[in-house]
Amino acid sequence: MKEKILTEAESLFWKYGVKSITMDDIARQLGISKKTIYQHFADKEAIVYQVVKDKLERDEKEYQCHFRGAGNPVEEILKVSELLRQHAVTVNPSMMLDVQRHYPKAWQVFLKHKEDYILMSIRDNLQRGVREGFYRPDIDIDVMARLRIESVQLGFDERVFPGARANVMAVQEQLLHHFIRGLLTEKGFSVYNQYNLNTI
Amino acid sequence: MKEKILTEAESLFWKYGVKSITMDDIARQLGISKKTIYQHFADKEAIVYQVVKDKLERDEKEYQCHFRGAGNPVEEILKVSELLRQHAVTVNPSMMLDVQRHYPKAWQVFLKHKEDYILMSIRDNLQRGVREGFYRPDIDIDVMARLRIESVQLGFDERVFPGARANVMAVQEQLLHHFIRGLLTEKGFSVYNQYNLNTI
Repeated sequence: MKEKILTEAESLFWKYGVKSITMDDIARQLGISKKTIYQHFADKEAIVYQVVKDKLERDEKEYQCHFRGAGNPVEEILKVSELLRQHAVTVNPSMMLDVQRHYPKAWQVFLKHKEDYILMSIRDNLQRGVREGFYRPDIDIDVMARLRIESVQLGFDERVFPGARANVMAVQEQLLHHFIRGLLTEKGFSVYNQYNLNTI
Repeated sequence: MKEKILTEAESLFWKYGVKSITMDDIARQLGISKKTIYQHFADKEAIVYQVVKDKLERDEKEYQCHFRGAGNPVEEILKVSELLRQHAVTVNPSMMLDVQRHYPKAWQVFLKHKEDYILMSIRDNLQRGVREGFYRPDIDIDVMARLRIESVQLGFDERVFPGARANVMAVQEQLLHHFIRGLLTEKGFSVYNQYNLNTI
């Protein structure tokens, strides 16, 4: 039952945002009583927390598969970004905004994920790229990893890119390819050009 | 006398920040009475406003000279960044922080400068680079110009690059060269490599 509640709650959160969904909505959707939900979760905050935690764990596993499957670091960063793009299409951005504003405990889980997992994954990719000669040896791994995380966030920020909302994925695409190109050695370019058909 | 007051005030602001400097300090430094200052300026805010405005106008003129002197857009962006670097060395960052926090009218002048002049200069450089074949034709000028402005600011932000304060210019250098490389065509690289000795 616990799993069923989480699955249904997550699906409602993605569709309608977190704030507008009540315990009543979740109970009604599952055809159970609110009392049954409270046997498993102390309050809505506890559900939100578990939903975010489970989601991030699933994401990490999925990324891990893609990392392992990539033949070189350029393919790796392109594959992971494609995955992010697919995720983003199905996502209601108000879910994460609601979490940030109203559910500090769940938001902390997300921030920790960003700091630990995402930053570490980018650093791993950069180190591998330098080691294997695809990225320049004179890049500062820490600075470049931070730049990547921050510019993804900038790309979603309407104050920075006004009018880009309608075309947020095109902005992200620009930022991604600019980021990769800025890292590449000549060897890196020869691999990158195989994946990127719009090459110059 | 008005000019003398502004010159002295600016020099004190750069050295000690804006907030800690009083009308008394400025008068004492010039060996004149506060009354003389008030004949020219209604209050300290009016002095701060004029100092910021004059400084930005001088900056624009100086940048203009460097723009005109550059043989190609890659040289242009490198020269302007070198100028910014030289400026940054002599600057007390608390001056701009004080302005941002306590002098909203002067801060508005700076924001307008950023929006109008800096953004326009970067856009001009990008357009010229694409037109002359040094930058990729598939870059989105607006997105790249914003990325550049925002990443310069990120580079000064201690929350984003912790521990980078001691070496803020090294971070800026990383961001600058990564930014330029991400734009270049093959023709662009052949010019860039002439200026950048640490080329791979």
